[in-house]
Amino acid sequence: MGGDHGPPVVIPAVVRAIATLPEDVRFLLHGDEAVIRADLAKHPEALARCEIRHADRVIAMDEKPAQAVRRGKGSSMWNAVEAIREGQAAAAVSAGNTGALGGISRLILRMVGELERPALVTSVPTARGLTTFLDAGANVDCDAERLVEFAIMGEAFHRAAHGTPRPTVGLLNVGSEEMKGHGEVREANRILREGKIDLDYKGFVEGDDITKGTVDVVVTDGFSGNVALKSMEGAGRFVFGELQVAFTSGPLASLGYILARPALRKFRDRLSPPPAAPLLGLNGIVMKCHGGATERDFAQSIQACVDLARSGFTAEIERNMRRLPDALAEHPAAIAPEGAGAAAPEGVQE
Amino acid sequence: MGGDHGPPVVIPAVVRAIATLPEDVRFLLHGDEAVIRADLAKHPEALARCEIRHADRVIAMDEKPAQAVRRGKGSSMWNAVEAIREGQAAAAVSAGNTGALGGISRLILRMVGELERPALVTSVPTARGLTTFLDAGANVDCDAERLVEFAIMGEAFHRAAHGTPRPTVGLLNVGSEEMKGHGEVREANRILREGKIDLDYKGFVEGDDITKGTVDVVVTDGFSGNVALKSMEGAGRFVFGELQVAFTSGPLASLGYILARPALRKFRDRLSPPPAAPLLGLNGIVMKCHGGATERDFAQSIQACVDLARSGFTAEIERNMRRLPDALAEHPAAIAPEGAGAAAPEGVQE
Repeated sequence: MGGDHGPPVVIPAVVRAIATLPEDVRFLLHGDEAVIRADLAKHPEALARCEIRHADRVIAMDEKPAQAVRRGKGSSMWNAVEAIREGQAAAAVSAGNTGALGGISRLILRMVGELERPALVTSVPTARGLTTFLDAGANVDCDAERLVEFAIMGEAFHRAAHGTPRPTVGLLNVGSEEMKGHGEVREANRILREGKIDLDYKGFVEGDDITKGTVDVVVTDGFSGNVALKSMEGAGRFVFGELQVAFTSGPLASLGYILARPALRKFRDRLSPPPAAPLLGLNGIVMKCHGGATERDFAQSIQACVDLARSGFTAEIERNMRRLPDALAEHPAAIAPEGAGAAAPEGVQE
Repeated sequence: MGGDHGPPVVIPAVVRAIATLPEDVRFLLHGDEAVIRADLAKHPEALARCEIRHADRVIAMDEKPAQAVRRGKGSSMWNAVEAIREGQAAAAVSAGNTGALGGISRLILRMVGELERPALVTSVPTARGLTTFLDAGANVDCDAERLVEFAIMGEAFHRAAHGTPRPTVGLLNVGSEEMKGHGEVREANRILREGKIDLDYKGFVEGDDITKGTVDVVVTDGFSGNVALKSMEGAGRFVFGELQVAFTSGPLASLGYILARPALRKFRDRLSPPPAAPLLGLNGIVMKCHGGATERDFAQSIQACVDLARSGFTAEIERNMRRLPDALAEHPAAIAPEGAGAAAPEGVQE
């Protein structure tokens, strides 16, 4: 029922996804039965793979998450997530209210580790492929342990989504030297450097490394993560806007634009991030598709969801999460002393 | 002596700046007298406006800032900053080691307010002009009071640099609602909202507002600021790289590029930020020019430095800084309670 368009986009997307998915992938469609049935009637070939689960209530796109959590029971979103806990579904995908989906998922599925709420992972296009980037804004306050949890989850996600056997991981900071940054990133760096967590950690990276593709997975707190992503989006939009101005600045430039247009379109497609991202850190796979998703976007999100459910993703996260207490135990209070003084004058950046 | 090129760029830049600056603007040139004199000999018309101050030592571009501060006495950079404290110079401009310049300036000139080290301000191009953005990376840990100090300094700088009588100010956050973000930005927002500090505060802004030009001045801590700037630079560079690929993908696209090239060049110029930025929060004006500066860049930095020295910039900052204790006094411990609970489920972002 979610997203800007609801069933008229979601149902055709399911039909489209079914065409390429293995035969044993089946769908539970949660929502207004009459509406879903009407949309599904146009695609009799998909009927056998779908089961409609009626829900009386729908969570609105603009509903306050706290309220959605309190009063969400019995809504289509609630039921979709509950089906995971009950073992009826391997994963859930929704284009609905992000905050509500995070809150409801956390309440029903509970978090792995000690994260407060699910981390949002994004895939950023680079010259070399896609960088997995998290947290995109869910956890604004993060200590070193949270950052290490993100590293574990992001690494497993990248492998599941892209098939890279051993993704490389970097920690976002304001410089690449060990003494750069605040206490939390320095401590997370120490834990990851030590090697008790099983991943290919490459150390600190900087903001421009996200689009350079220096590492496969870039980890940061939800505040910096959200700021970085929105800033990059803004910069991209600004560049496109200015390009538009340049291309309409005279007849030659306009002609140039017409000739280059097909190449530029392909270029624009390359820059678009995937339409969906999982909420990470839950005991279960919940995929958030963006609200304005088209049929193609939503079908792609379903495919990504199936890939994730069929990968070793969840088990890999659990395996590394079990190593975390041991990795932390060595450094009971190791954050402040080292480098705090030395870092001071270095803090001034070029 | 600083920057990637030293006197061969700096001296011609001084000569170029002199041509357009009022006659009473004079220069103290700190560095190796023989080298400077040799470069200056080619421009006898500039000799009367310049005085060479010999220094035996030069701080290297890669010298550790802490070491530069300890052993910097008598270097050209040290002497340039000391001339401000001694009232011999109204401002200093350098293309040298940023960290060393920050450390030496702090030691010699001392900070206004309680900032740990000078804030770095950057001007980001937007569709509507330039956004003043700070801190670009000097202060990675910032409490609410630091953020308010940045707002005061950034606002005064924007007026001095661009002549806007009353620049608008926004605080960078992960959403625009009052309860979004961590405790420090929420508290800074409260202080600025209250109106005891004299500036046109517009509330929270997000990452994409930096290039939208939603407000004239965007304020954030040095960690997020550095991350945002580097991320935007990276995104911009990536888009240009992809554009290059698009334009060389076939003969029509290449022809399109040739036709559109002059417009695209103008476009690229529009995207370049100014070559210099002041170190803010010092008792004196110190301008940092980027290391790779060309003659034109350095001349522009001198012009910006003169504009700043002739503006009411320093007095305006002092005036608002005096209001700060009163603005803070009202909220002895107001950070944590409000909205912390309510914000939790909202933290999950679209």
